[in-house]
Amino acid sequence: MAEPGAGEPWEPGEALRDIAELDHDRFARRGYPEAVYCEGKTAEQAGVIAAAVGERGARTLFTRADAGHVEAILAALPDAAHDATARLVAWPPDPPEPTGGTVLVVAAGTSDLPVAREALLVARHLGRTADLVVDVGIAGLHRILSRLDQLRAARAIVVVAGMDGALPGVVAGLVAAPVIAVPTSVGYGAAFEGLAPLLTMLNSCAPGVAVVNIDNGYGAGHMAAQIAAPVPG
Amino acid sequence: MAEPGAGEPWEPGEALRDIAELDHDRFARRGYPEAVYCEGKTAEQAGVIAAAVGERGARTLFTRADAGHVEAILAALPDAAHDATARLVAWPPDPPEPTGGTVLVVAAGTSDLPVAREALLVARHLGRTADLVVDVGIAGLHRILSRLDQLRAARAIVVVAGMDGALPGVVAGLVAAPVIAVPTSVGYGAAFEGLAPLLTMLNSCAPGVAVVNIDNGYGAGHMAAQIAAPVPG
Amino acid sequence: MAEPGAGEPWEPGEALRDIAELDHDRFARRGYPEAVYCEGKTAEQAGVIAAAVGERGARTLFTRADAGHVEAILAALPDAAHDATARLVAWPPDPPEPTGGTVLVVAAGTSDLPVAREALLVARHLGRTADLVVDVGIAGLHRILSRLDQLRAARAIVVVAGMDGALPGVVAGLVAAPVIAVPTSVGYGAAFEGLAPLLTMLNSCAPGVAVVNIDNGYGAGHMAAQIAAPVPG
Amino acid sequence: MAEPGAGEPWEPGEALRDIAELDHDRFARRGYPEAVYCEGKTAEQAGVIAAAVGERGARTLFTRADAGHVEAILAALPDAAHDATARLVAWPPDPPEPTGGTVLVVAAGTSDLPVAREALLVARHLGRTADLVVDVGIAGLHRILSRLDQLRAARAIVVVAGMDGALPGVVAGLVAAPVIAVPTSVGYGAAFEGLAPLLTMLNSCAPGVAVVNIDNGYGAGHMAAQIAAPVPG
Amino acid sequence: MAEPGAGEPWEPGEALRDIAELDHDRFARRGYPEAVYCEGKTAEQAGVIAAAVGERGARTLFTRADAGHVEAILAALPDAAHDATARLVAWPPDPPEPTGGTVLVVAAGTSDLPVAREALLVARHLGRTADLVVDVGIAGLHRILSRLDQLRAARAIVVVAGMDGALPGVVAGLVAAPVIAVPTSVGYGAAFEGLAPLLTMLNSCAPGVAVVNIDNGYGAGHMAAQIAAPVPG
Amino acid sequence: MAEPGAGEPWEPGEALRDIAELDHDRFARRGYPEAVYCEGKTAEQAGVIAAAVGERGARTLFTRADAGHVEAILAALPDAAHDATARLVAWPPDPPEPTGGTVLVVAAGTSDLPVAREALLVARHLGRTADLVVDVGIAGLHRILSRLDQLRAARAIVVVAGMDGALPGVVAGLVAAPVIAVPTSVGYGAAFEGLAPLLTMLNSCAPGVAVVNIDNGYGAGHMAAQIAAPVPG
Amino acid sequence: MAEPGAGEPWEPGEALRDIAELDHDRFARRGYPEAVYCEGKTAEQAGVIAAAVGERGARTLFTRADAGHVEAILAALPDAAHDATARLVAWPPDPPEPTGGTVLVVAAGTSDLPVAREALLVARHLGRTADLVVDVGIAGLHRILSRLDQLRAARAIVVVAGMDGALPGVVAGLVAAPVIAVPTSVGYGAAFEGLAPLLTMLNSCAPGVAVVNIDNGYGAGHMAAQIAAPVPG
Amino acid sequence: MAEPGAGEPWEPGEALRDIAELDHDRFARRGYPEAVYCEGKTAEQAGVIAAAVGERGARTLFTRADAGHVEAILAALPDAAHDATARLVAWPPDPPEPTGGTVLVVAAGTSDLPVAREALLVARHLGRTADLVVDVGIAGLHRILSRLDQLRAARAIVVVAGMDGALPGVVAGLVAAPVIAVPTSVGYGAAFEGLAPLLTMLNSCAPGVAVVNIDNGYGAGHMAAQIAAPVPG
Repeated sequence: MAEPGAGEPWEPGEALRDIAELDHDRFARRGYPEAVYCEGKTAEQAGVIAAAVGERGARTLFTRADAGHVEAILAALPDAAHDATARLVAWPPDPPEPTGGTVLVVAAGTSDLPVAREALLVARHLGRTADLVVDVGIAGLHRILSRLDQLRAARAIVVVAGMDGALPGVVAGLVAAPVIAVPTSVGYGAAFEGLAPLLTMLNSCAPGVAVVNIDNGYGAGHMAAQIAAPVPG
Repeated sequence: MAEPGAGEPWEPGEALRDIAELDHDRFARRGYPEAVYCEGKTAEQAGVIAAAVGERGARTLFTRADAGHVEAILAALPDAAHDATARLVAWPPDPPEPTGGTVLVVAAGTSDLPVAREALLVARHLGRTADLVVDVGIAGLHRILSRLDQLRAARAIVVVAGMDGALPGVVAGLVAAPVIAVPTSVGYGAAFEGLAPLLTMLNSCAPGVAVVNIDNGYGAGHMAAQIAAPVPG
Repeated sequence: MAEPGAGEPWEPGEALRDIAELDHDRFARRGYPEAVYCEGKTAEQAGVIAAAVGERGARTLFTRADAGHVEAILAALPDAAHDATARLVAWPPDPPEPTGGTVLVVAAGTSDLPVAREALLVARHLGRTADLVVDVGIAGLHRILSRLDQLRAARAIVVVAGMDGALPGVVAGLVAAPVIAVPTSVGYGAAFEGLAPLLTMLNSCAPGVAVVNIDNGYGAGHMAAQIAAPVPG
Repeated sequence: MAEPGAGEPWEPGEALRDIAELDHDRFARRGYPEAVYCEGKTAEQAGVIAAAVGERGARTLFTRADAGHVEAILAALPDAAHDATARLVAWPPDPPEPTGGTVLVVAAGTSDLPVAREALLVARHLGRTADLVVDVGIAGLHRILSRLDQLRAARAIVVVAGMDGALPGVVAGLVAAPVIAVPTSVGYGAAFEGLAPLLTMLNSCAPGVAVVNIDNGYGAGHMAAQIAAPVPG
Repeated sequence: MAEPGAGEPWEPGEALRDIAELDHDRFARRGYPEAVYCEGKTAEQAGVIAAAVGERGARTLFTRADAGHVEAILAALPDAAHDATARLVAWPPDPPEPTGGTVLVVAAGTSDLPVAREALLVARHLGRTADLVVDVGIAGLHRILSRLDQLRAARAIVVVAGMDGALPGVVAGLVAAPVIAVPTSVGYGAAFEGLAPLLTMLNSCAPGVAVVNIDNGYGAGHMAAQIAAPVPG
Repeated sequence: MAEPGAGEPWEPGEALRDIAELDHDRFARRGYPEAVYCEGKTAEQAGVIAAAVGERGARTLFTRADAGHVEAILAALPDAAHDATARLVAWPPDPPEPTGGTVLVVAAGTSDLPVAREALLVARHLGRTADLVVDVGIAGLHRILSRLDQLRAARAIVVVAGMDGALPGVVAGLVAAPVIAVPTSVGYGAAFEGLAPLLTMLNSCAPGVAVVNIDNGYGAGHMAAQIAAPVPG
Repeated sequence: MAEPGAGEPWEPGEALRDIAELDHDRFARRGYPEAVYCEGKTAEQAGVIAAAVGERGARTLFTRADAGHVEAILAALPDAAHDATARLVAWPPDPPEPTGGTVLVVAAGTSDLPVAREALLVARHLGRTADLVVDVGIAGLHRILSRLDQLRAARAIVVVAGMDGALPGVVAGLVAAPVIAVPTSVGYGAAFEGLAPLLTMLNSCAPGVAVVNIDNGYGAGHMAAQIAAPVPG
Repeated sequence: MAEPGAGEPWEPGEALRDIAELDHDRFARRGYPEAVYCEGKTAEQAGVIAAAVGERGARTLFTRADAGHVEAILAALPDAAHDATARLVAWPPDPPEPTGGTVLVVAAGTSDLPVAREALLVARHLGRTADLVVDVGIAGLHRILSRLDQLRAARAIVVVAGMDGALPGVVAGLVAAPVIAVPTSVGYGAAFEGLAPLLTMLNSCAPGVAVVNIDNGYGAGHMAAQIAAPVPG
C-alpha cells in the first residue's frame, strides 16, 4: 500500500479539467493504478494528462499509444518506460515488487505478439510475476502439450489467439486455473476482425474460460493480475 | 454403373410435374444418386415424389424428413429404410457394396449425433465404408488423441461439432487426410444457432479443413464419399 | 482429493459407448467434477449417462435439464438434487464442504434469476461458499451502492444482467475482485437474444470484467469457483 | 421570428441547381435553420452551397466539414465560425440569443469530445443555453454522482459515450429530464465502430433514454434544442 | 406531488425480497412511477410484486403482461385496469389529472397498434393528454399530410412503424416538436424482427428523431411524457 | 379504368376508422388495387377491413392470410377466392382480363412454391397473363436451359429461390427481360432465414436483377405486373 | 441490331486469354453491351481488355474506373468518353439513338450524385432517354411533391438514397411505374456502409420497389433500361 | 519421403524462439510442408523465420507476403521463388515432381486472379499437377459449359468467386469430383467483403461443395492437394 501518490489530495489544473477527470480515487477504491486509453485522444491531450500524472505522482499506464502519443507523454514524463510492440507507456518505469501467484500469457501465433505482450506488461506493472509463451497454436498440438508443467504452475492464464481462437478451450481442458481468453483481429476475411475467435472463446466447451474484448491485452492482463492477487488473510 | 434405374428414360406423371422436376440425369452426370430435401415440402408432396421414385426405380435419399414426410414416403415405398435420429429415408434400403477408401465421421458431443449419423448413412448409401466416433470434444483432449490410428486410416474425415467448433482444426493438425467440418446448431446463446462453430471452422489455423452448412450432415457425407471415391484407372 | 470416485478405473457399458465418452479423467486433471449439458440430448441419453454416473460414482452436474431429462436422471439417480429454476440436477445432492474464498452472485433483475441461480448452485457444488443478491440494476443505483460491503467481501463476483448489461461494469468500478459477467437473453427486440448485453460487457470501460456465454450460469459459476479456489501452499 | 432571411423568396443559381435543392422553407416549417452535411460532398460543392447561403442570407450550419470543405466554405462566407474539434462551421458566426431551458451535454470520456462538442454548439446555434461536462464515465461513479445538481437543472440532457455506452442509462436513472444518448465509434474491436454502445443505449433498463445515430452530435444537439424549446403560450 | 404512496417509508416482505427490490425511491427521484416488466418473470413473481405494490400503495404499471401475469396481478390488485391490446396493467386504474403538453401517438399500420397503444396509455398514466392516429404510413402520403394540424399541435410525437420505418422521418420533416420513433417487429423476412425500421429511424435524414427499442411502446410513452412535462415555472 | 369502385367517394364506418385507413385513392393514383397485409392483424381486424372492402366495392387482395384471417374475410366476402398455398384471398374472385406482356414465375425448388404461387396470382389479379415453372434449380442446369424459349417470351420474369439463391443470376444471363428476384427462407442454418439468397441476388454478377424482400411473392408479382404493363400508346 | 461489332466472330489474343474471357455473345443473347467492372483489376489488365474491345469493335462500358484504369483504357481507346463523377468510361463515346420509354433518375441528396450519375449514363448508353433530379430527400417533402409530373412521365424510375433510404418508398407510392432503388454508402455510423438504406428499401411498405446492390448505379441503370425498352411488336 | 530436411533434428536459435515455434514435425505428421502466414508479422520476423527455414532446410511456403516481407525473406533465402500476384514465396523455388490426380483451379472473374493463383501454386508446391481457368462466371454460362471435359478430368476442383459466388454450385452440378469453393472479397457493398459469396457457397443446392475462408487461396490449394493425393496401396 506504499504505492506512490495513490489517493492523496491533488487538484487538477485547468488544461486537464477541460478534457479529462482523472479517477484519483481508483487505487484507494480498487487497489490498482489508473490507465489512460490513448486511442481517440490527440497527442496534445495525452501530453496534458501525462503532465498531470507527473504532478500527482501516482502510478499510471498509457495504453494503445501511437508515436504521437508516446512523444507527448515522454516529453512530460521523460523516465517513463515505453514498449513499442505492446504500444504501452508505464510510469514509473519499473513495476512494483511482485506478489501473489504467477500469471502466464500464451500467444497462439507470432501475429498475436503485440496483444500478448501488452497483457504481460500490464500484469507485471500491476504487481504480478508474469511469463510469456509464443506460437503454440493447435495446428501442432505437441507445442502446447509440451508446456503442461508451466501451464499448471500458473494461478491465472491469459490465452491470446486470432483466427479460429481454439487455443483457450484446449488450455482450459488441461488445467485447474482460470483462463482469460483474448481474441485478436488476426486472420482471413471470415475472422471478421476478431469476431470469429471471440465467438469461439465465448462458446468454449471446456468450462473455465472467460473472455475480454478483441485485442484487449490490457483488460486481460488486469483481470489476470486480480485473479492472481495475494489472498488477504 | 449397375445402379438401379439410373439414367433410363422415364416420363413423370402430372402430379409430379406440378411440384418437382426430378434430376433423372444426375447419376449419369455425377455418379451419385439424387436426394430429396423434405423440409419445406408438404407430406403430400414428399409422397408424390416417393411414388415417382418408385416408378422410375432409381436410388434416392430423402433428407430432413419429419414424421409426416416419413409416413407419406413409406406409403409409397414400403421397403425404404428410415433412420429416425438422422431423419433420413433411403430407398432401396440397403447401401450398395462399398468401394473406395474409408470415411470416418467424428462427433464432438452427444448432441451432435443426429447430424453425424446423417453424414454416416449418406456416405454408406453413396458407396463407402463409413465409421462413427462420438463425444471426443477438445475439453478432454485424450479422447481424440487415443483415436489417432483410426483417424489416420481414413481417406476422408467428417468432423461434426457445435459450440466452439474447435475439433475439426485439432483433427486436421493430426492427419494427412482432408477434413470436412460440419457446424451444428448446438450451444448457448452466443453460438447463434451454429454461426460460432461455422466461423471457427472457416478460420481453422490448421490447413486441410473445408466447411459445409450448419447441421448439413447430408452435404458432409456426400462430399466425403466423393473424396474417398475409388480412383479411376 | 477425497472426492467420490474421481479418477478411479471404470469401464463404460455399451449403451453409453454409443452416445458419450465420459471424461473420467477430468477431476484428476482439473480438480473439478464433470458436467453433462442436457440440451440437445434426448431424455433417454440423459438417463443412460446418469446410470453410468451412478455406477462410476463420481460427482456430476446435469445442466439445462428440462422435465424429460430430469425424470430420466432421477430414475437412475433417485437421490440427486434438482433445482427447477436453475434447471440443474446435482449428484450427489449435497455440495462438498466449502473451501477457498466467497463467491457473490448478483442479478440485475428478477428475470435474470434462473441464470443467477445456476451460477450460485454450481459454485457451491464446486466447493465454494456462495451468496445471491437480486434486482439491483442500474436504473436505481442506490440498490447496488447499498451493497458495497458485501461486494467487497467476495473473492469473485458473478454479475448476471440482460437488457443494457451495464451492471458488471458498474460493479467492477467499485471493487478489487474480478467480475465474471453473464449476459442474459432478457429484453426488448434490440437486445437480440442477449447480444446487446454481451457486447456491453465485452466493452466495459472499467477493467476487471471478463465475459461468458449468454445465459451460461454454469460457466460463470465454474469460473468463479476456480478464481476463489483455495491457494495452494 | 426575426431569424435572418428565413422563408424569404429567393431563386437559386444554376451551379446550385445541379447539385442541391436548399430547403428554404425549413425555418418557416419547423422553426430551426438548415444544416448541410458535408461528408460525401466535394469541397467545390460545399463552396457552391455556402455561396448560395450567403446570397439567401439564412442561418445555416455545415457539419462534418473536413479541411477542404472548411476552406471552400470560408472562401464564400469569410465571417463564418469554425470549430475544428466539432468539425462544424456556423453562419452567421454567433448563435441567437438563448431562449427556453438549458441543455447539458455529458461526455463519458475524453475521446468522445468531438461528438459532444458538436452537440453543444448545435444546441447553442439553435437558440439554447448549453453546457458541457467531460470524462465522467461509469468506471468511477463518483464523478457523475458529484454532478447531480447540474444534471437536475437541465431540461434536456445529451449523453455521449463509446465502449460500453452505459452512462446514459445511469444518468436517466437519476433525473426527471429526458436523455438523448449518442453512441460513439470509440473503443476496442467488439465495440464494432459504435454498434455496442448503440445497442446498450437502446436497451437501457432505465426509461427516459432515446438514441440517435453513432457519432451524430448534430442530431443530438438538434433534438435537445427542440425538447428544451420555450413552451408556447 | 400528491401521488399516492410515493417515497413513503415501507418495508418489503420476505417473498418479495427473494425476487425483487422495488425502486420505492423512484417517484421522489424522477417524478414518474415505477414499471414492472413482466416478460421473463413467472406469473407467481408478478403476483408477489403486485401484492407488494398494493401494500405500499404507489402508482405502478405492469408492462408486457401475458394472460398468466394478468391473472396473478388482478388477484392481488382487483381494481387494476388491464388493456389486452397493449398488454398493460395499471394501478390505480385511472391516470392522474393531465398536465403539460399533448402527446400524439402515430401508428404507420394496423399491425403496429399494440405498441402504439402501449405508448398512448403510458403517456396518459404518466400524466399527459395523449391521442392516437392509426394507419397513416407513407405508401399513401395524403393520409399523414391531412393530419398536419394535429401533428403541429403536439408537444411530443411518438411515431410507431415496422417494415421500412420511414414514417418518423417524414413526420419530423413537417413539425417543430421532437419525434420519438419506435420500430416494430412487423414485416417480411428482411425486416429482421425490427432491425430494418430501427436502422431507418436511426438514420433519419430529417433531424428531430430519436429512437427507442424495438416494440418498446412503454419507453416511447415515458420519454414523450417527460418531453411534454409541464415546465417548472 | 372500369375497375370496380376505384376512387369513388366512400366514407369508412367507425369500426374501421379505429384500426385502419384504407388508401381509397390508390387505384386512381397508381392504377393498381390495394392489398391488405394480414400478418400482425387480428382475425377480427381482417374481418372489419373485408366488410369495408365489400361496402366500398373496390378490388382488393389479402396477403399472408392464416386460417383465422381467411375465415373472417370469407364471412364478410363469401365469394372471395382463397388460395391456401399462396395464403392469398382475392376479391372479386376473378382477375381482370389480362393486358400487357406475359409474366413468367420461376421457382428453383418445390419448397419455394408458396412464394412463387403468391407472385403468380398477384400478377394475374393485377391484370397480366402469368405462368409458372417449378423446380429448375442450378444443381441440374439442363432443367432451366430447356426452358429458354419460355424465358425469352416473357416481358418480366420473377425468379424465386432459397438456399444459394443462384438461379436469378443464371436466368438474367440468358434473357433480355428484367428479372425480379425473390429470396425465400428455405434452407439449412447458414441460409439464416433467407439472408443468404438475399445477398446472392443483390450481388448477381449478371446485370438485370433487382430484388424484393424475403418470401415477398406479393411484391415480386406486383413489380412484374408493373414492368409488363401495357405501354401507353 | 446495327450495334457495332456485336456477335461478330473474333479471336482473343494471348494477353487477354490469360486474364479474361470477354462475353462476345452477350449482345446477341441479351441485347445489351458488355460492361467491364474495373475494381479489383489492375490498370494493366484494364488496358489489355480495352485493347481487345477496340479490336473487336463492340460497344463496351468500363465501370468503377479509378485514375489508373482510365489512363490505361484511354491509351487503348483514345476517343472513349470518361465521366469522372460516375467513374465510367464508355466506348464508343456517344450513346446510341434513344428508343423506348424515359428513365428518370432521382437522387435523395448531393452526396448520392456519383451513383445517380452512373445510373443516368448507363441508361443512356443502353439506348434510353434519361433525366436526373437531385436533392429531393424526404426531410423536405415539398421538393419531391413538386416533381409529380416528371415522375409520372417516366416508364422506369431509379431512386438513389443513402442514410434512411426512405425516398424510393415515397416515390413508389405516388406513381404507376416501377421503381429501382439504389442504396448508397452515405451516412452516419449506423448506416453501416449502406446496410440501413438497403434494408429500408427491401422493406418498402409501398409495392413497386425492387432493389439493387449498394452504390450499384450501373445495375440500376441497366435494369431501368430493360424495363423501359421498346416493346416488341 | 525424400522431402528435404523434413523431420530431421534441428535446434532453433534464440531470435526465432522469442517469436515463433516452427512446427518441424509437420511433414512427418501430415505429409505436407509448413506455411508461414506473413500478415500480422513484421518484415523482421519474417526474415528471422526465413533464416531458420534455410538453416533447417525443409520446404516452406510464405503466404500473404507484402513487399517488406518479400525483401526480408529473399535476403535470407535468395533463391526462393516469388509470385507477386499470389503474394507467395516458395522455398525451394521448384515444386516437387507431381504425383496423384490433377487439381483444376477455376476463377469466376479477372479480379479473383490473385486468390486463384495462390491456390494454383500451393497445389503445385504440395506435389500436384494443377491448371487454371479464368473468367468463366455464370453471367455467360457458355464459358463454363465449354470447359466440361477439362472439369471432368480433374480429381479436385477449386472454384474461386466473389460477388454472388454462384459458380461453385454450378460446377458441382456438372461433375463427380469434389469442389472446394473460395469466396473472395470482390464486389459491391452488399458483398460485405466476401460474406455474400461465402454464404452462397455454404448454401449450394448442389452437393459436393465445401468452403474455405474468404480469399484463402492457400487453404483451398492445400485441401485440393490432399484430395488429389496419390492413394496409398
